[in-house]
Amino acid sequence: MKQSQFFIKTLREFPKDEESANARLLLRGGFIDKNSAGVYTYLPLGLRVLENIHGIIREELNRMGASELFMPALISKKYWEVTSRWNTDILYKVNDSSGQEYGLGFTHEEVLTPILKKVISSWRDLPVALYQIQTKFRDEPRARFGLVRGKEFIMKDLYSFHADDKDLDSYYLKVARVYKKIFKRLGLPVKVVEASGGDFTSEYTHEFQVLTPAGEDTIFYCSGCDFAQNKEIAKVHEGESCPLCKKGTIRKESGIEVGNIFKLGTRFSKPIDLSYKDKSGAKNFVVMGSYGLGSSRVMGALVELSHDSAGVLWTPAVSPFQVHLIELAGARAQASQIYGTLLKRDVNVLYDDRKGTSPGEKFADSDLFGIPLRIVVSAKTAAAKKVELKARGEKNVRLITIQKAIDYV
Amino acid sequence: MKQSQFFIKTLREFPKDEESANARLLLRGGFIDKNSAGVYTYLPLGLRVLENIHGIIREELNRMGASELFMPALISKKYWEVTSRWNTDILYKVNDSSGQEYGLGFTHEEVLTPILKKVISSWRDLPVALYQIQTKFRDEPRARFGLVRGKEFIMKDLYSFHADDKDLDSYYLKVARVYKKIFKRLGLPVKVVEASGGDFTSEYTHEFQVLTPAGEDTIFYCSGCDFAQNKEIAKVHEGESCPLCKKGTIRKESGIEVGNIFKLGTRFSKPIDLSYKDKSGAKNFVVMGSYGLGSSRVMGALVELSHDSAGVLWTPAVSPFQVHLIELAGARAQASQIYGTLLKRDVNVLYDDRKGTSPGEKFADSDLFGIPLRIVVSAKTAAAKKVELKARGEKNVRLITIQKAIDYV
Repeated sequence: MKQSQFFIKTLREFPKDEESANARLLLRGGFIDKNSAGVYTYLPLGLRVLENIHGIIREELNRMGASELFMPALISKKYWEVTSRWNTDILYKVNDSSGQEYGLGFTHEEVLTPILKKVISSWRDLPVALYQIQTKFRDEPRARFGLVRGKEFIMKDLYSFHADDKDLDSYYLKVARVYKKIFKRLGLPVKVVEASGGDFTSEYTHEFQVLTPAGEDTIFYCSGCDFAQNKEIAKVHEGESCPLCKKGTIRKESGIEVGNIFKLGTRFSKPIDLSYKDKSGAKNFVVMGSYGLGSSRVMGALVELSHDSAGVLWTPAVSPFQVHLIELAGARAQASQIYGTLLKRDVNVLYDDRKGTSPGEKFADSDLFGIPLRIVVSAKTAAAKKVELKARGEKNVRLITIQKAIDYV
Repeated sequence: MKQSQFFIKTLREFPKDEESANARLLLRGGFIDKNSAGVYTYLPLGLRVLENIHGIIREELNRMGASELFMPALISKKYWEVTSRWNTDILYKVNDSSGQEYGLGFTHEEVLTPILKKVISSWRDLPVALYQIQTKFRDEPRARFGLVRGKEFIMKDLYSFHADDKDLDSYYLKVARVYKKIFKRLGLPVKVVEASGGDFTSEYTHEFQVLTPAGEDTIFYCSGCDFAQNKEIAKVHEGESCPLCKKGTIRKESGIEVGNIFKLGTRFSKPIDLSYKDKSGAKNFVVMGSYGLGSSRVMGALVELSHDSAGVLWTPAVSPFQVHLIELAGARAQASQIYGTLLKRDVNVLYDDRKGTSPGEKFADSDLFGIPLRIVVSAKTAAAKKVELKARGEKNVRLITIQKAIDYV
């Protein structure tokens, strides 16, 4: 992609009213634009990152046999009333001109469970797993931390439907494994943390937390084993010995919750009357699970974890481009030849072909974009048939031949 | 994809409260689910059709140099007030707990124009073209005709920004050409129809209309030339001779509007103060165009145009699968071998591997799905190393060898 033909505009200054690194760097790098508190536009550069995140999520969920669908945002009041969630604090309400009332979906049990009710009758119809990637709405009084806590955000929500608790339990563990794999591919180290089930379940649920000082949650975890609990349920204190392994020490850190998995049980199937006939012909309520993964929040967490003062450092898996090719004055022919060669080799390259932009400006933009690999061609390097190769985040610049650079990429 | 592992559930009966063919057949075939009047879920089968439509749109718009972005649905009141659109009838309004007011986007000039204001200063920054594919909201008192007129629907909206009218005019024509290509690839014959510019412009705008008795608009057009006008501006009557070519006769038909293109001029750039400095250093308002294409409505229009009493007939370009492989009793080994071979050849195949479902039921489902090509393997055909090949919509069934069928596909 030629930079002159792609809509990318970096901002010269840090936005003053944003405190978090992800908001400041994503706004400044032209990844997002702020419309109002907690409401953002994903500009072309940012949408590429988001779509890379979605690509990984889709691949892993499709592989585990879940099917993708797309549910509406306008959910009629009648559905929320059945499940007693109409008066949820975070629900935005909308009236239409005919007097109908709707809630804007923050999760979609109220939409999906009635759909399943139409098609599930026997144990043969179970289990079922369906997911969507969709904009969610949440009347969030404390919208802040950029993409971490928004009024409108993008989430993958998966729902599973089972004949019994045992089947749900094993699927729940399977989702936990797939989540770990997704976060690993995204380059996001997560801790699986026990948390309260709220009004859904007396059992613990599990959160996937990214440990970072920028997080809003407080996590107690063991230095030696997998023990980790959210502050809201933890009975341990920092410095104590681990109640599970008895060896490690309890540590305390902040975390960003990027995913959560819930055993819903019959919380929604009972009021909606989603049931099936078992092998003996007896009626049973379907047992449900729900599994969230905040994709726009993942984008924010990735920035919190991986940036320097000059900009973001994207991992190759989510970076909007793999290579940033920068042409300096007098190197048009060589740069455009390298660009052509990289395109032929299917390299996802951004080519800064802008004229009249200073080298300093081009390098500053490149640091803001956070593309893993930078190739610079100047009149001087071109004359020697060489380029400068530099990895984002490293100081070391290598002067190597054009051919070697292309092969390296 | 094995049908046993994919969430597809057809309904035995036609929904009684839906009058349009697209709603009845899409609901019955398990493509969509109705949540409330004008609000639908795209089930996995329907989402595949929608994504195929989006794939074609993206390909053509990217090729013409437009960049994709993703704007929010919650648009703060302050933006709508600047452009005097806060009191638009079709705008859904939402309050949050802090007293902020929002309108749910039905188009996005109010979001995009302020973004451009931040980054455009000189004639060198123009032209710019940006688009998104996004859920739109419209307080529609007469939600009906299934996907044709909804309260929530999916649309591609493209916006262009130019230095002057001349540049807008030539881009407008270019978009019209690209739209024709998109609709051709989608298998949707369209008429380009002159229509009123509403309060945007005194010039005509252009609608892309699919002529079908199921349409809500009334179109007058010439039997011989390209003359076509929407009833709202037409001064001609049925049977008259064409005012343009003087040879053809004026005909009258109903149409579904699947796209529209507008020259917005400075309607939004003036109140938002989006301006640039020209070569002489003088300040000018940016000249804008906007171009809509309703992708969920396209899905509805495709069904209206191409169905029979048994179900939809998808064109290969948008069909959720290219081949429907149906296994009847006693042909598991052969069917699964054919399935494996087709997968190896990258054929997008749906494999009906369900046990205990009658042939009649399988054929009826297949007709509802509307996949262009059907391959049936029974114990009898398998014994002869043959399969039955049938195109959807044709009566003719060919008994051919397995190898020939695979090669044909």
